[in-house]
Amino acid sequence: MIAILKPNTSMEQQEHLIHWLKSQGLMVHISHGDKYTVLGLVGDTSHIDVELLQSLDIVDSVKRVSEPFKQCNRKFHPDDMVIQVGDAKIGGGNFAMIAGPCSVENHDQIVEVAQAVKFAGADMLRGGAFKPRTSPYDFQGLKAEGLELLLEAKKITGLPIVSEIMNVNHLDLFEHVDVIQVGARNCQNFDLLRELGRTNKAILIKRGMANTLKELLMSAEYVMAGGNENVILCERGIRTFETYTRNTLDLSSVSVLHELTHLPVVVDPSHATGVARYVRPMALAAAAAGADGLMIEVHNDPIHAKCDGAQSLKPAEFHELAQAVRRVREAIAQ
Amino acid sequence: MIAILKPNTSMEQQEHLIHWLKSQGLMVHISHGDKYTVLGLVGDTSHIDVELLQSLDIVDSVKRVSEPFKQCNRKFHPDDMVIQVGDAKIGGGNFAMIAGPCSVENHDQIVEVAQAVKFAGADMLRGGAFKPRTSPYDFQGLKAEGLELLLEAKKITGLPIVSEIMNVNHLDLFEHVDVIQVGARNCQNFDLLRELGRTNKAILIKRGMANTLKELLMSAEYVMAGGNENVILCERGIRTFETYTRNTLDLSSVSVLHELTHLPVVVDPSHATGVARYVRPMALAAAAAGADGLMIEVHNDPIHAKCDGAQSLKPAEFHELAQAVRRVREAIAQ
Amino acid sequence: MIAILKPNTSMEQQEHLIHWLKSQGLMVHISHGDKYTVLGLVGDTSHIDVELLQSLDIVDSVKRVSEPFKQCNRKFHPDDMVIQVGDAKIGGGNFAMIAGPCSVENHDQIVEVAQAVKFAGADMLRGGAFKPRTSPYDFQGLKAEGLELLLEAKKITGLPIVSEIMNVNHLDLFEHVDVIQVGARNCQNFDLLRELGRTNKAILIKRGMANTLKELLMSAEYVMAGGNENVILCERGIRTFETYTRNTLDLSSVSVLHELTHLPVVVDPSHATGVARYVRPMALAAAAAGADGLMIEVHNDPIHAKCDGAQSLKPAEFHELAQAVRRVREAIAQ
Amino acid sequence: MIAILKPNTSMEQQEHLIHWLKSQGLMVHISHGDKYTVLGLVGDTSHIDVELLQSLDIVDSVKRVSEPFKQCNRKFHPDDMVIQVGDAKIGGGNFAMIAGPCSVENHDQIVEVAQAVKFAGADMLRGGAFKPRTSPYDFQGLKAEGLELLLEAKKITGLPIVSEIMNVNHLDLFEHVDVIQVGARNCQNFDLLRELGRTNKAILIKRGMANTLKELLMSAEYVMAGGNENVILCERGIRTFETYTRNTLDLSSVSVLHELTHLPVVVDPSHATGVARYVRPMALAAAAAGADGLMIEVHNDPIHAKCDGAQSLKPAEFHELAQAVRRVREAIAQ
Repeated sequence: MIAILKPNTSMEQQEHLIHWLKSQGLMVHISHGDKYTVLGLVGDTSHIDVELLQSLDIVDSVKRVSEPFKQCNRKFHPDDMVIQVGDAKIGGGNFAMIAGPCSVENHDQIVEVAQAVKFAGADMLRGGAFKPRTSPYDFQGLKAEGLELLLEAKKITGLPIVSEIMNVNHLDLFEHVDVIQVGARNCQNFDLLRELGRTNKAILIKRGMANTLKELLMSAEYVMAGGNENVILCERGIRTFETYTRNTLDLSSVSVLHELTHLPVVVDPSHATGVARYVRPMALAAAAAGADGLMIEVHNDPIHAKCDGAQSLKPAEFHELAQAVRRVREAIAQ
Repeated sequence: MIAILKPNTSMEQQEHLIHWLKSQGLMVHISHGDKYTVLGLVGDTSHIDVELLQSLDIVDSVKRVSEPFKQCNRKFHPDDMVIQVGDAKIGGGNFAMIAGPCSVENHDQIVEVAQAVKFAGADMLRGGAFKPRTSPYDFQGLKAEGLELLLEAKKITGLPIVSEIMNVNHLDLFEHVDVIQVGARNCQNFDLLRELGRTNKAILIKRGMANTLKELLMSAEYVMAGGNENVILCERGIRTFETYTRNTLDLSSVSVLHELTHLPVVVDPSHATGVARYVRPMALAAAAAGADGLMIEVHNDPIHAKCDGAQSLKPAEFHELAQAVRRVREAIAQ
Repeated sequence: MIAILKPNTSMEQQEHLIHWLKSQGLMVHISHGDKYTVLGLVGDTSHIDVELLQSLDIVDSVKRVSEPFKQCNRKFHPDDMVIQVGDAKIGGGNFAMIAGPCSVENHDQIVEVAQAVKFAGADMLRGGAFKPRTSPYDFQGLKAEGLELLLEAKKITGLPIVSEIMNVNHLDLFEHVDVIQVGARNCQNFDLLRELGRTNKAILIKRGMANTLKELLMSAEYVMAGGNENVILCERGIRTFETYTRNTLDLSSVSVLHELTHLPVVVDPSHATGVARYVRPMALAAAAAGADGLMIEVHNDPIHAKCDGAQSLKPAEFHELAQAVRRVREAIAQ
Repeated sequence: MIAILKPNTSMEQQEHLIHWLKSQGLMVHISHGDKYTVLGLVGDTSHIDVELLQSLDIVDSVKRVSEPFKQCNRKFHPDDMVIQVGDAKIGGGNFAMIAGPCSVENHDQIVEVAQAVKFAGADMLRGGAFKPRTSPYDFQGLKAEGLELLLEAKKITGLPIVSEIMNVNHLDLFEHVDVIQVGARNCQNFDLLRELGRTNKAILIKRGMANTLKELLMSAEYVMAGGNENVILCERGIRTFETYTRNTLDLSSVSVLHELTHLPVVVDPSHATGVARYVRPMALAAAAAGADGLMIEVHNDPIHAKCDGAQSLKPAEFHELAQAVRRVREAIAQ
């Protein structure tokens, strides 16, 4: 950690601060510039409150040298993490296509969509049973029944399944779910993340609408600190002033995250844009940007979908998209 | 609800859509403009998926006429809601000063701060027992023990207490807490909100960093839809590109919320700015903007605080601030 | 235009408003809902101040039906605009690769880079002569001399050139520049745009850091209203809370703009990310998203560049990228 | 400047970098931590490209120690700047109330408003002659004629006048204008700022919708670097995702700017909110936050205003507001 002292700081004040820092078990390297004095703090600085140090009268600014994330830090894990669920692999060059309806509605719907996306080459089936809805008056999902229907579709198609959890108390219901999704609104629900760290499930964490990439990594860290290393990160758009799309898909996050962490990164263009006809170009862009996977909403009858029909592809559109994604991945691999 | 059709829509397409809308139980008023045809949909439109309607080929755009929030809508509740906890009232002209440390650390600390803020005129004591921290390696609060210490401070001073809940399963521990706070990161933790709607506690909901005022109201609606009308809204800053302050305090939210809802609105300048020396000007500004209360972090020893020391006032500073707030309130009341 | 009246509006108030609207030359269609009355205003509403109408006591909200942009609106110009400069075409399926250094530094530098990017397949040469720098103390470009050097590179390579204008008074200097660029910071410098509308040059307008797509189109409209239809739009990232990249590249803007307008859309991944190693993935993503062109910073010696060396590719990297872009374009075209 | 090297950097690489830094005339202090090596660069670092240094393979991150703004930096000018125009003073405890219509429309309108705001206690008259409008089809101001009318109102009332410039070439027209305003959209129109630095007029610079406070200061620096120290800064709201108000007024900017610079800071609640009924609470809040002045739109007939009528106060409302502002200023001064 680096602390920069303000000009005109008296020697006495400096010594007082240095004394305090040393009492916290740190070594202090002092570097005098023309106007500023810089303190290099060596040792375990994890217990130092950066904002407090920064607020001291004589301190101009403070900078952490090491990142606060450890378990998910590529510096300590140079090799890509590969996560396997069922026959599907993600990360380390393995690309996973995750597809399915926003919400599970009934047996025929989920099985029909599952078969269609499998036929199109999907690696996993997504489907919402517990739905986080902005309004308490909107359809909230089939809940436990939805998960059962999803498991039937898994049995029939062999596809591993991905579904969102909203409540720690539902964990038992997710026993046979392959990938547990933490939604954007729960990206910093730390109690939920901590509990998921005690499971051995693959956990897919969506970036919150206002979360920095560093915060997303700290959320992964909550899961990993509990001993569960199977974390997949998901970019799904951040909130900006632009209103033509529901969110602004931040595709550069793929490159940044690949530098910072060894965890796989998938992109969800359906929720990012909120508009079915933008899903294809953004899915292809995500593949070109180097994403490890895609998460696409597919519905056999979007116009009658109970949720997010506006952003769902029809099976035939998805089929065509999946082929184009493969071509793009070949194009960038050469 | 209004649906605007694209120019060059054929009569057949229009009739097809109108037929479908009528089959949803709506009456349809048709208005032909120079280029556009406008459909006015009358009846219960709450089940219509706006985004889906908007995504249809022949639809240019859709606009909801009535707001999606009902219980918290001032249109149906013109009089200010007044919430009473202990001797303190908030709303309808009653101003509540809520003060205390970011986190409860030990008996002496919380009692000392409680007595100091009471002496300065605070109406409620705040103190965190369960702390949502970005890093799993940071101090997470004293938890149950923290709540007990807070209750002791309540007993000694008589001040009603405010503390944050992070997990539905902790609800029993909050039996004697007067106001349960939902933190910014849980502003859209709908399962938590729904459960709190089944209690009769006063619930203080902080606006999430990326939440619009409409979403904040929908979160209040989750609580109220369960039968609990005792909701206090809290503006605590939103996330923007500016980095000199931790968040950007959106004080115009006070006026906007007062128009849209009858619920009381408090402002938290401590978390908004993250810097103690900005708390006073922002607290005075919030009072001048017409807030129904303030939530201020006060610590007897900020430099040794376990959390957020950088943004805490000392008791003497808070005392002086409380007096200035009173003067500002008198100034705007004339 | 649609105006929605508040519930409980008296007939007298309604009639007063309707009378006034008619006096503005509009026809008014009235539609009574359960709670709300909706007025459909037909005729030339371009002189009606939406915000003023919205601020009236009895008005709940107002919605424009038709977009405020006309000349650049695809509704009135369904076919893609193709812009030709020299041998290069852009739009309507023609992809243009624009490359070159951030700023022109000397004869050898610009000629060397020009030859390298031409060899790699670039269609146009970019180079800054007038540089908008945040600090008055930074290098501001070679100005007129820079343009002369750029013209020499054009003569040697035959590449059409693109350069930024910052001041209406410099227009004469740009006589032989093929594409005049309006930088992000001047995206709403309306006097500059208006003057450029009186030329017959191709004008490339970069989206401002805080500009909506609608505002970008209104800026294009300023140029086109003057009679100059040769406008190219450029997405170069918007400002958000994320700090790992300089800006957040909004690639969904390509799809949205292609819907709204017939003008070509290029993407500048160099300024968007500010980091050379993110340029390649974002360039490929932009191509996959359907952009009509790319604008890439290339420098023969980035480490000694006078400006933005951090985001410049070396010629060999650009060469490899240009090939990959071609492969991606083939992949999405099938 | 501080440069932090990545772990595992070889001694040879370090020495290569240090050699290069020394060749730039800098002294280099080396501090070895557990994992990281930190270089403290002493000397004139203003010519070092931070982003370039940061992009080097062996560099983890770079931090500037000293701010890039000098002329407007309070560190070098500890006393508040007081700017006097006519009888009005602003800064250093002097509060200036600036009021008037969005745009000058005709002789009677501007004179009537001028007399009304003078009677209410305004210190300066504002009025737009050149109007930056998003649409080329909207009223663009009376231009030269508008300035003449404004000068007549100045002659009649004795109030100094404030008006916006959009184009360097109009400078002659502003000879008798007391304060020249640079609008939000021109906040980084560096050529305009540079020219204004060559005048001795007071220059009021509005913060751009996406500009950080640091960038606003750099824009002030452009003016001051030319020798003109008479700069007033103006907060008028930044662009965020919230849509109930036109912009989000960032009142903490007042405190932050007062720390960083000695220049006066005024607040414009009219453009920030865009809604007349929010102007009063935000004006009072700005006064409570310690602003050095306010800029308020006042129109004698808002419903017929040619521009921004929705956000204009009537003279009687302004009169009442001006009194309340005085009371708030007294309340915070005690």
